[in-house]
Amino acid sequence: MKLYFAPRSRAVRTAWLLFELGIEFDIEKYELGAKEMRTPEFRSINPNARVPVLDDGDVRMTESAAIAQYLLARYDTEGKFSPAVLSPEFPIYLQWLHYGEGMIMGAMNNFVVETVFLPPEKSSQVHADRAFKLMDRYLRAVDAHLADQEYLAGAFSAADTITGHACYMSEWFGVTFDEMPNLGAYLDRIKGRPAFQKALEL
Amino acid sequence: MKLYFAPRSRAVRTAWLLFELGIEFDIEKYELGAKEMRTPEFRSINPNARVPVLDDGDVRMTESAAIAQYLLARYDTEGKFSPAVLSPEFPIYLQWLHYGEGMIMGAMNNFVVETVFLPPEKSSQVHADRAFKLMDRYLRAVDAHLADQEYLAGAFSAADTITGHACYMSEWFGVTFDEMPNLGAYLDRIKGRPAFQKALEL
Repeated sequence: MKLYFAPRSRAVRTAWLLFELGIEFDIEKYELGAKEMRTPEFRSINPNARVPVLDDGDVRMTESAAIAQYLLARYDTEGKFSPAVLSPEFPIYLQWLHYGEGMIMGAMNNFVVETVFLPPEKSSQVHADRAFKLMDRYLRAVDAHLADQEYLAGAFSAADTITGHACYMSEWFGVTFDEMPNLGAYLDRIKGRPAFQKALEL
Repeated sequence: MKLYFAPRSRAVRTAWLLFELGIEFDIEKYELGAKEMRTPEFRSINPNARVPVLDDGDVRMTESAAIAQYLLARYDTEGKFSPAVLSPEFPIYLQWLHYGEGMIMGAMNNFVVETVFLPPEKSSQVHADRAFKLMDRYLRAVDAHLADQEYLAGAFSAADTITGHACYMSEWFGVTFDEMPNLGAYLDRIKGRPAFQKALEL
């Protein structure tokens, strides 16, 4: 397998899961936002100029959560990283696997555009504040859910590599967890996982 | 089953798939953006005040793509609406199931906020234009993919009820398909499906 990767991007999620699964992979490394990701060459790999992209033989995929489900279906046949379909945890797992992109990341993207990517004269404090407030609200729902769970679906699962990583990213942008103690403790558990640490060091 | 539903929302996706599956369900109907969706009662159903919410016995789910995967795993055991794990279509199915929320909807949400929800004095044409341009780019990738496919994963699948519906929504906001003929023809195929028509009439 080959992973097109950038540090501090959603590609960390894929590397993390590959390490959890014990699958070896090659890396082609980029810097987030670098010109190299907007060349015709890279656009022929992903027209939307994003990472992760995972190549597995003839298979090429680009959505981090889709990649996670693909890896589990084909390479985690014992079901170590997702609950069985008929278990009570199964709908919870799916719910939280999708929550990262469905809820948190849209607000986070908007916050990052306003505060990091746009030059000050083009950015808007009103938009930044609105995005931050939304992101905070979506994170509070995660905190409430984690009141009685170690991980999003009880045991550690691929949902943590997606939505857990989305929560982890929020810390870079100034979210604090004083009022979200369950989420803070959860992020400490995530940070303690060797596979996550390896993905952060790439 | 009970579906918390609003016309012209992501809940159409769930109703559509339930009709495709031939599953009977009750509906609790709201109007999108109505006060009734921001009451403490509704927030006890979904703290993020969104539809769809699907109740299936003790199971409660709120992310449209998660709901779709749940319904297939538990109620489409013959695999009518998703390719088999070992088929070449399986990664393509996952990729496009996630693409709707991962790519298109973030840009579309931003466009709608600027042009529909915000009063003119608070909205920004620069933000609206940027969101429209992004949405257009993400749709062009769907158009390119559909050059040689009837549906997103070859045969009709749950990916069409998610990302197909996201493409369908873009038409409300002024996207035209003159330069995306594959996507235009695809949307005509979707609109011809009786289950989709039934979902639009709710």
